[in-house]
Amino acid sequence: MTTIFRGNIVHTPRLGELKTIPRGYLVLEDGVIDGLYDHLPHRYDGVPVEDWGDRLIMQSFADMHVHAPQYAMEAIGMDLPLLEWLQTYAFPTEARYADTEFARRTYRRLAQELISWGTTRVAMFSSLHTDATLILMEELEKAGICGYVGKVNMDRNGGENLQETTEESLRETVRWLDSCHFAHIHPIITPRFTPSCTDELMRGLGKLGRERGLYVQSHLSENLSEMEWVRQLHPDCRRYWETYQKFGMWRSHTIMAHCVHSDVREQEAIRDANVLVAHCAASNVNLCSGTAPVREMLDRGLWVALGSDVAGGDHLSMARNIEHAIRASKIRRIESNWHTPFLTVAEGLYLGTTAGHRYFGAGNGFAKGDKLHAIVVDDSALPEGVRELTVRERAERLVYQMRQEFITAVYSDSRRVR
Amino acid sequence: MTTIFRGNIVHTPRLGELKTIPRGYLVLEDGVIDGLYDHLPHRYDGVPVEDWGDRLIMQSFADMHVHAPQYAMEAIGMDLPLLEWLQTYAFPTEARYADTEFARRTYRRLAQELISWGTTRVAMFSSLHTDATLILMEELEKAGICGYVGKVNMDRNGGENLQETTEESLRETVRWLDSCHFAHIHPIITPRFTPSCTDELMRGLGKLGRERGLYVQSHLSENLSEMEWVRQLHPDCRRYWETYQKFGMWRSHTIMAHCVHSDVREQEAIRDANVLVAHCAASNVNLCSGTAPVREMLDRGLWVALGSDVAGGDHLSMARNIEHAIRASKIRRIESNWHTPFLTVAEGLYLGTTAGHRYFGAGNGFAKGDKLHAIVVDDSALPEGVRELTVRERAERLVYQMRQEFITAVYSDSRRVR
Repeated sequence: MTTIFRGNIVHTPRLGELKTIPRGYLVLEDGVIDGLYDHLPHRYDGVPVEDWGDRLIMQSFADMHVHAPQYAMEAIGMDLPLLEWLQTYAFPTEARYADTEFARRTYRRLAQELISWGTTRVAMFSSLHTDATLILMEELEKAGICGYVGKVNMDRNGGENLQETTEESLRETVRWLDSCHFAHIHPIITPRFTPSCTDELMRGLGKLGRERGLYVQSHLSENLSEMEWVRQLHPDCRRYWETYQKFGMWRSHTIMAHCVHSDVREQEAIRDANVLVAHCAASNVNLCSGTAPVREMLDRGLWVALGSDVAGGDHLSMARNIEHAIRASKIRRIESNWHTPFLTVAEGLYLGTTAGHRYFGAGNGFAKGDKLHAIVVDDSALPEGVRELTVRERAERLVYQMRQEFITAVYSDSRRVR
Repeated sequence: MTTIFRGNIVHTPRLGELKTIPRGYLVLEDGVIDGLYDHLPHRYDGVPVEDWGDRLIMQSFADMHVHAPQYAMEAIGMDLPLLEWLQTYAFPTEARYADTEFARRTYRRLAQELISWGTTRVAMFSSLHTDATLILMEELEKAGICGYVGKVNMDRNGGENLQETTEESLRETVRWLDSCHFAHIHPIITPRFTPSCTDELMRGLGKLGRERGLYVQSHLSENLSEMEWVRQLHPDCRRYWETYQKFGMWRSHTIMAHCVHSDVREQEAIRDANVLVAHCAASNVNLCSGTAPVREMLDRGLWVALGSDVAGGDHLSMARNIEHAIRASKIRRIESNWHTPFLTVAEGLYLGTTAGHRYFGAGNGFAKGDKLHAIVVDDSALPEGVRELTVRERAERLVYQMRQEFITAVYSDSRRVR
């Protein structure tokens, strides 16, 4: 079974490498990518071509850190710092998901909006509610999204109606894991962050994760007050990351969101364990957390991808979040007296696509043997250039100018989902 | 002649003051605002009400610094610093406007896009071409936009096909001024920036401006290399602003874009002359110029409004540019060890609306006696909150989440233009 797409192909096989094939061909054999071509080889003569004309065929986006329940408060309460913002907005919002009807409505809308912005892979926090978490997974699955979702664990320092006992938290986690039967959406162990979880809970979660072979996601070194709090809670740990390591959760494919204030030693620990940094530039500025040293982390060999962090982040569009990552790196450049190179648009695109897709076992860019995760983009509503724009320039412009209505088609796991 | 609008009214009469009237009334008498009301007074019994239901009636935006010809290269070439970017992208693009057919097409589209984002007042740079400048003014007028447009003057350091002789520049400026007969679009004297204009040209422009009672717009202290260049060109001037003062162009309502690196003395000179600072936060980060000290300028009593600075800025939407101004101020907060207060959403909205409208003689917010500059916004496509959102929260969210299709109606100078 052969499928052939034609269009202006854009992908980022490596950091800083943006490849384009103007009016090129992308061939799928039995639902996996077989090759990319300037000119279609003769062996495909007679096979029908799905021609997207002058549209761009780009990689879809991967959002490696997003809080599903906070979608209901997206872009609200942007005038508070992290810990106050959690108490005033985030925790009361999450408490609302005890209501499964509300969860169903909101999560259906969230899944549709993710697809409409071309995000096909996610690593997502739910709330502590087992039933709402299963509903979230079901709605993502139905919308055609692939990824990892975690029932959040928190047995201390929660808000009103947003805390479990240690025993409940572990029991509900087991009930949740036993109920996960989805083709494309998988469970991931999700202690909210160290201040939310007692040692006993962390120990139980670490054990559960290892027994069932599950990945882990959490938060790390987002904000200076939070880090001070963690030091008080764990005087035995010299650095924040050790509070995860202690309980067996510091290992390959653990996702740590933020890492804004991770020092060299913490960065090395991240690299050595093959932990993924989910960089959330919009959120880090919104909550005045800081600007993460992404260039430094990349130079040091860390694995960095991007997260929208809705609703510390204000927008699900990963194009916008790529833009924010580029801007954050330009701020670091200015602050370093113009010594540190910023992220180019090509590098930003890599972080928002390939770097995240690799978490799911994908190769570099549109790689042979991969399932197709792609968007088809019609940018004809954007202004005419003074000369014909290159495909590369058009792709760069879309980082800043993407609109929902430009995204004509979305492919996830080789299925057309929009 | 009485017109009555009903809807959720939002405006920012003063810096930091965001006023809302849920399901309130806005009354126009003979095309000027007569009052805002919670409940409609009895004297209006029987007058038909244009009811916008649950939509928001907000102030339209004012874009106080934008380069019309660069619209054709919006969001392209974001990987270069200012002076290289000018030579590689901006100047070759502007040279293209010798072609009046191209100018007509592009400027028509620009005018439509401005209105579609709810921008009704502008201060705009054209290119050096007189005919294209007149076409730009005509297209803005037709679209219903109000504002100031300047034929750019540059008799040194231009690019290929983008430089005039001093004599040409002055002669063409007079020809242009003599041809300006528009109801809502007025000319403004526009030396590109000090490095582009010889003393003789500056002297001539200063004189022309005074004789004809015209305002002036230009650039100031955007970037450290530019400032060094100006020091070399004008060893007699201690600070950049003096290069404008010297030629009689430093006076009330002169618009100076950027002012990123203006020191205390330059800031005081801006304040004392009632010069308007057009803060262009997106552009300043895109081109790695720096982050302007907006809080400091506001505390010191300077008049600051916002500019998109397309195409150093990447987007015409002033909602996005307000967001960028807020983010820039949060960066300044982080850099000051969390001492400097950031711009709240309410303050950002003030800068993007009232602060700019005041340039045109408008009062505070929807003020009695003013012509109506307003947008009607339908935010029903945004997610349901966990409780009913206040009108204030909905307005705040729109700074981050505005989409073109939300803007149902636009009023400019009391005319419905969309």
